[in-house]
Amino acid sequence: MKALVYHGAGKKSWEEKPKPVIIEPTDAIVKILKTTICGTDLHIMKGDVPTVTDGRIIGHEGVGIIDSTGSAVTNFKVGDHVLISCITSCGKCEYCKKSMYSHCTTGGWILGNVIDGTQAEFVRIPYADNSLYPIPAGADEEALVMLSDILPTGFECGVLNGQVKPGDTIAIVGAGPIGLATLLTAQFYSPSEIIMVDQDDNRLDVAKTFGATHVINSAKENTVEKIMKQTNGKGVDVAIEAVGVPATFELCTDIIGAGGHVANIGVHGKSVTLHLETLWSRNITITTRLVDTVSTPMLLKNVQSHKLDPNKLITHHFRLDQIEEAYNTFGNAAKEKALKVILTNE
Amino acid sequence: MKALVYHGAGKKSWEEKPKPVIIEPTDAIVKILKTTICGTDLHIMKGDVPTVTDGRIIGHEGVGIIDSTGSAVTNFKVGDHVLISCITSCGKCEYCKKSMYSHCTTGGWILGNVIDGTQAEFVRIPYADNSLYPIPAGADEEALVMLSDILPTGFECGVLNGQVKPGDTIAIVGAGPIGLATLLTAQFYSPSEIIMVDQDDNRLDVAKTFGATHVINSAKENTVEKIMKQTNGKGVDVAIEAVGVPATFELCTDIIGAGGHVANIGVHGKSVTLHLETLWSRNITITTRLVDTVSTPMLLKNVQSHKLDPNKLITHHFRLDQIEEAYNTFGNAAKEKALKVILTNE
Amino acid sequence: MKALVYHGAGKKSWEEKPKPVIIEPTDAIVKILKTTICGTDLHIMKGDVPTVTDGRIIGHEGVGIIDSTGSAVTNFKVGDHVLISCITSCGKCEYCKKSMYSHCTTGGWILGNVIDGTQAEFVRIPYADNSLYPIPAGADEEALVMLSDILPTGFECGVLNGQVKPGDTIAIVGAGPIGLATLLTAQFYSPSEIIMVDQDDNRLDVAKTFGATHVINSAKENTVEKIMKQTNGKGVDVAIEAVGVPATFELCTDIIGAGGHVANIGVHGKSVTLHLETLWSRNITITTRLVDTVSTPMLLKNVQSHKLDPNKLITHHFRLDQIEEAYNTFGNAAKEKALKVILTNE
Amino acid sequence: MKALVYHGAGKKSWEEKPKPVIIEPTDAIVKILKTTICGTDLHIMKGDVPTVTDGRIIGHEGVGIIDSTGSAVTNFKVGDHVLISCITSCGKCEYCKKSMYSHCTTGGWILGNVIDGTQAEFVRIPYADNSLYPIPAGADEEALVMLSDILPTGFECGVLNGQVKPGDTIAIVGAGPIGLATLLTAQFYSPSEIIMVDQDDNRLDVAKTFGATHVINSAKENTVEKIMKQTNGKGVDVAIEAVGVPATFELCTDIIGAGGHVANIGVHGKSVTLHLETLWSRNITITTRLVDTVSTPMLLKNVQSHKLDPNKLITHHFRLDQIEEAYNTFGNAAKEKALKVILTNE
Repeated sequence: MKALVYHGAGKKSWEEKPKPVIIEPTDAIVKILKTTICGTDLHIMKGDVPTVTDGRIIGHEGVGIIDSTGSAVTNFKVGDHVLISCITSCGKCEYCKKSMYSHCTTGGWILGNVIDGTQAEFVRIPYADNSLYPIPAGADEEALVMLSDILPTGFECGVLNGQVKPGDTIAIVGAGPIGLATLLTAQFYSPSEIIMVDQDDNRLDVAKTFGATHVINSAKENTVEKIMKQTNGKGVDVAIEAVGVPATFELCTDIIGAGGHVANIGVHGKSVTLHLETLWSRNITITTRLVDTVSTPMLLKNVQSHKLDPNKLITHHFRLDQIEEAYNTFGNAAKEKALKVILTNE
Repeated sequence: MKALVYHGAGKKSWEEKPKPVIIEPTDAIVKILKTTICGTDLHIMKGDVPTVTDGRIIGHEGVGIIDSTGSAVTNFKVGDHVLISCITSCGKCEYCKKSMYSHCTTGGWILGNVIDGTQAEFVRIPYADNSLYPIPAGADEEALVMLSDILPTGFECGVLNGQVKPGDTIAIVGAGPIGLATLLTAQFYSPSEIIMVDQDDNRLDVAKTFGATHVINSAKENTVEKIMKQTNGKGVDVAIEAVGVPATFELCTDIIGAGGHVANIGVHGKSVTLHLETLWSRNITITTRLVDTVSTPMLLKNVQSHKLDPNKLITHHFRLDQIEEAYNTFGNAAKEKALKVILTNE
Repeated sequence: MKALVYHGAGKKSWEEKPKPVIIEPTDAIVKILKTTICGTDLHIMKGDVPTVTDGRIIGHEGVGIIDSTGSAVTNFKVGDHVLISCITSCGKCEYCKKSMYSHCTTGGWILGNVIDGTQAEFVRIPYADNSLYPIPAGADEEALVMLSDILPTGFECGVLNGQVKPGDTIAIVGAGPIGLATLLTAQFYSPSEIIMVDQDDNRLDVAKTFGATHVINSAKENTVEKIMKQTNGKGVDVAIEAVGVPATFELCTDIIGAGGHVANIGVHGKSVTLHLETLWSRNITITTRLVDTVSTPMLLKNVQSHKLDPNKLITHHFRLDQIEEAYNTFGNAAKEKALKVILTNE
Repeated sequence: MKALVYHGAGKKSWEEKPKPVIIEPTDAIVKILKTTICGTDLHIMKGDVPTVTDGRIIGHEGVGIIDSTGSAVTNFKVGDHVLISCITSCGKCEYCKKSMYSHCTTGGWILGNVIDGTQAEFVRIPYADNSLYPIPAGADEEALVMLSDILPTGFECGVLNGQVKPGDTIAIVGAGPIGLATLLTAQFYSPSEIIMVDQDDNRLDVAKTFGATHVINSAKENTVEKIMKQTNGKGVDVAIEAVGVPATFELCTDIIGAGGHVANIGVHGKSVTLHLETLWSRNITITTRLVDTVSTPMLLKNVQSHKLDPNKLITHHFRLDQIEEAYNTFGNAAKEKALKVILTNE
């Protein structure tokens, strides 16, 4: 089969690889129908993720068809259409039993990281019963690719951890794909005001069409001042960090109101300064999280009932064998006005 | 001043009464701008509420203007526009400190019950700082009358107690004003499916325009069978009782899924049968509640941000001095296609 | 091997049966070391549980040693000492993923019910990775037999569902083994007062030594009056039903305070009367639950750290081949002053 | 009357001051029976708290007798014995209605800070109905002085925010009075293991007698290594910071397990480094809080029922007029082996 293979920092190729086979009785082999590229994949390609080694097929998102199953798989049979979760869950370790699949002792984020991933014609999915989700007949499978990672990430790390609730004033710092996925799913809880902060006017314009009630271009405006003015000096109820650099995290702690929640989504490469000299008495909560994908069944239901439209996040389409071109587009997101790309295995 | 006075079962009159005066330092006198009639008022008029005695001015909803304040009132001053809560809260008893204002040891539901109420030109509000809410400049005051009782009741007793969450399938039994208020506020949490059950096709039609995804006329269809079919035999995640008779409560326990929540809103006059012989192992939760009106500030914010439009619940308008005519209309709700009426003190 | 076999109402025998074998890759065969008898087993023997048919080996509690494992079992290996949960969990169905193992679509309470159970020399455990728990080296295995059913049942259905919290006044109605298990585990949350209600003075005496702060013999005293007096007319914060008849459930709803929680543990054979005509406005919560055994790991930790001493519940010891004698003792619990019996497979 | 007055950094005197009088209808004047000194008072005396100005009577803890009340006070009458909360709550602002009394818009921590405090013969308590608690007849009033600040602080900021639960392994960093108050109240939730960390062997010995299961002298041992070894490399479920310097906060984030809670109690004067480069994916929660004293009624109940013995925290006694000597003792806590001192107004 063909697959996108990582060969060290800056080097990747679309090349022939052996088709994966069942190793454990709980495995399934899935033929990829549609996949996508994640911001994390760009980091991998730069060599920033040391767990990914030369020869690895990358990618951790996608929908497909069951090609074969191990002897202990009971939830799926050959021919079933499935959604692949970016997180692999054994369903039986200490962490899985606490619904913290991200820290599964033999799973977690392993796809396209320490085992071969989804940017390929076929992929082996360990613990298939717990790591795949059935796609209802007639569903929009392209939309569901957004449920492999980006939507549960925005929802769980941002919205659930931030405890967004009706009537809240919330700020989302970062209007990239993850920030926008957070914006879409935050509306499940009917906050009164959603302030979107970014430095790219195009993305802020998109945010307005996605439901943001206010937008701030932090490159042009004093964000803290503007938010404090809008909240009568109180700060926001929830501040969600969707970038992953010190400045945006510290911005979140600057605008958070007493009793508020700062929910970190961003993948950080550096430590940040936490101003406990002012925050110690502010009754705030700060959370971090690697997505557990526990919300995937709910997200599926809300896509089916049209409460959530993931297609809004998709800006570009390619054939799977055009993946290198797709990387170029996604890697120049601002210029290309790209959010998420869809790669179809035709 | 003029007021609507209860004179025993079946007898009421719009008559002259002394204007109320400040009794305690925490009191305020409010000039009524707009009020309405509650289903409970109809029960009072039938003589069903023994705490209401001859001579009582009834009514527990409305918006108005502060006419005078006691010496300990600090949140309001003369001329402020205010929303009157149906629940009076002292803010300092054991129950108020637990946000259970409904059981305030010297408050709770007392307006138009054991003290004079709001269907009058003026009303005395005890513990004004805790029992009134400031109306933002420019707000639609007519809409806010729905926040005195009906919207917090549907939201707190039905939606919050039912723990409605994104992706849920919920049923609301009863499409009267309270059931419809529940329908509007349930959507704050983005359930996937909302099944509305009633015996009045007009109300079910209204429910559809308010966001119900399915409606069942329980006079014409087998409700349990239909809901079980729709939920693949599992039952609903949340069943909300908004009528107040044994049959509707028992219907809720018949359609509830394992792990589900039955939230009672209805005012019951009789005991019901609880089928513990089947329910004991079903991991269900049943709740009852007299509204606490703790959600009023949130509801106000969501009206201001257009997440909630209470005007949908208003079908008829009268001058306050036409109140006896308004009672006739509201008392024949099915025939008049009446939901809530607004009475304006011009 | 030898096993206790049900042969229709009133008939059981200790007889030879084939040793169980691995059927599914997720199975394990466990050699029983110690088991016990549950009140449910007495009901089965009376013919009250129609799912149990002629020829069934009963029993759903015990500790043992892994004798063999299926190819997909990874958490255990031959020779490991294990605690058997009364609830079988597949770990991968809709309910298991919500930690509601009691409603596992292919598990739940099946041991000694629809498949052969633990009152035998060997037992087949489906979904072994999710339904067995490792016993730490040096643990008191006899004590751990109480963790198969009785302690998680009292804790989850009574204490967790009742939301017992520090400072609460709670009542536990029923001082049998389940009620006493509830009493022991309620103290994890430091309620200020624990009122134990029963009709057997011996059991109430036991309850006092287990930590009850007050006891009421409901055959001799007016329970409602006494509890209302003790709580200054407010009622209790939590009332836990641990009997399973209408009178005890209705007692719980009579003594519950405004805002309180009624947690049902008892297995009911009849419907009960729910007095919604008074309860509708009392802000109460009623819960039912079949134990999920999600708390087993925590209970194991607290036994290991001496926060919980399950041995208190064990009054009698027998060899496994004396099981019919053990049934006689346990079946005459009041006369024999029996709580739980231990059967040892020597 | 006599009072301890702050006169700028390093200067205080026990001197004559006018007896306070009722200013607002919600005020009460309380005659002090017993008071104590807080670590915060030492900071004030050093000049570290700029809101405290020359002439201020300091102190924010104590028990006393109602001497007079304003016209709107209804919960108390002259002669009642009361517990004074360190936090003043109006009961009617946005924050008080959310039980966040610490951020009361006209209260919060004002006693002995921006208004005169309790190290005096009399004190004026604003919002008396919400800021005082009735002392039950026969209570140990000396013990209750520990409920003004130290016990609710340890419980709310450490135990509640840390979400300590049965079976947890928790670490408390700092074994001073606040850390020890946290240790006492953490046991309300029956954690399996409580690791106490400090640099003073005497305090660690005290911690052992208070219920610590393990102690670590961080001046002599590698704390991270030892805790990781004890938790099989997982880290603790809850880490509570009870010192207030960067090193102890950062220690908490070094020892926290995936999914764990870091609860800050300490008053910090400097920012800290937050290692998001490792913590971003660890699913942790960090909280800060100024005590709200919402738990005071519960703590009172648990003292009355002997679930909590605050006397353990009291090491020294003085007459109120010996307060300067008491400051010397408390200011040399390590040498004097002092935890809390009691000052009695005889």
